[in-house]
Amino acid sequence: MRWKKISDAVIRRLPLYLRVLDELASDPNTQLISSQELGVRAGVGPALVRKDLAWFGEFGKQGVGYEVEFLRDELRRILNLDQEIKVAIVGAGSLGAAFARYTHKRYSDDSSFNLNIVALFDNDPEKIGAQIDGIPVYGSEELKDKVEELDLQMAIIAVPAEYAQVAADQLVAAGVKAILNFAPVKLTVPEGVHLASADLSLELQRLAYYLRD
Amino acid sequence: MRWKKISDAVIRRLPLYLRVLDELASDPNTQLISSQELGVRAGVGPALVRKDLAWFGEFGKQGVGYEVEFLRDELRRILNLDQEIKVAIVGAGSLGAAFARYTHKRYSDDSSFNLNIVALFDNDPEKIGAQIDGIPVYGSEELKDKVEELDLQMAIIAVPAEYAQVAADQLVAAGVKAILNFAPVKLTVPEGVHLASADLSLELQRLAYYLRD
Repeated sequence: MRWKKISDAVIRRLPLYLRVLDELASDPNTQLISSQELGVRAGVGPALVRKDLAWFGEFGKQGVGYEVEFLRDELRRILNLDQEIKVAIVGAGSLGAAFARYTHKRYSDDSSFNLNIVALFDNDPEKIGAQIDGIPVYGSEELKDKVEELDLQMAIIAVPAEYAQVAADQLVAAGVKAILNFAPVKLTVPEGVHLASADLSLELQRLAYYLRD
Repeated sequence: MRWKKISDAVIRRLPLYLRVLDELASDPNTQLISSQELGVRAGVGPALVRKDLAWFGEFGKQGVGYEVEFLRDELRRILNLDQEIKVAIVGAGSLGAAFARYTHKRYSDDSSFNLNIVALFDNDPEKIGAQIDGIPVYGSEELKDKVEELDLQMAIIAVPAEYAQVAADQLVAAGVKAILNFAPVKLTVPEGVHLASADLSLELQRLAYYLRD
């Protein structure tokens, strides 16, 4: 099932709500949460919480709030996190390797995360054939075959800027539909492929603006 | 000099423009750029480019465009990137170490970056006293002294989620005014401290939504 015409701004907030519900789910004393409390914990206004969730159904009761476990399950389903998603990292340098370790740990620790790094790709013959936290490193020329064989649905690009578009093109050609780009460069992908950017440099440069108050 | 009341949405786009100008500055044949071209390359509409830049002054000429070198210098000045900014990383685990290497390389390669990682902090006695790409790792208890001694203005938090708020509190107490948080948790900082989040997990969870088209 897919909900049409929902803005990405709404989708961006759903993982924030899910994170709060994950935290609460471990506390047996909290079975209900008000939109007020959910909003405060997620850093979102309560009216916006209600509006965001209303796009997907009637999850709460007026004056009572949301059932934590139920809403958590619903959000996991909406975000496709009720099933394992297999993820590749392109670039097994220090950043790619660190993301592999980090994400692998999240997958082990957190049942709502469900994004499993199962392959790394690199061009360096010294890295190919090695493993990082048990995740194999393949040669880039194996990308297309491995996407099919391992059912890779998502990829993280962690190569230097000058190789990032090539990596994106290879991923798109192999059929990957969702890409998170860490390289400090703007990438072009065809319609139907979803691209997110997590550019450390841009965030740091933005923060620099606020230093001279 | 500080420009008041400019929205963060504007500030977020300035590094995108700067990146385009950096790319063009290495090409001696491109001395001028139109708002149209700048917009296309930055992924921003041309009217918005003109509006964003107009907040800070009259940088372009009608029908001529912007002088690349001049606008680049102005943007670096506006973003406080005309001077070296000293940055700390709290957490010298695999993610912290990878960010240290990555950011150190950006600082060496790119004159508009100007964010220099000069210290890492950790609690692990095995890491304290070591160096990562020549950057020393200090004990967390040295944070306050080192912020003053080294003039650390910005920090990146790369510790596990459960320690991230403690790290933020220590940074705030030491006088750091700008923090980039990589831990998958919402942090609270007092007014006057600027916090940016680069949460890999949230971006991946958002992308997962788009997998089932």
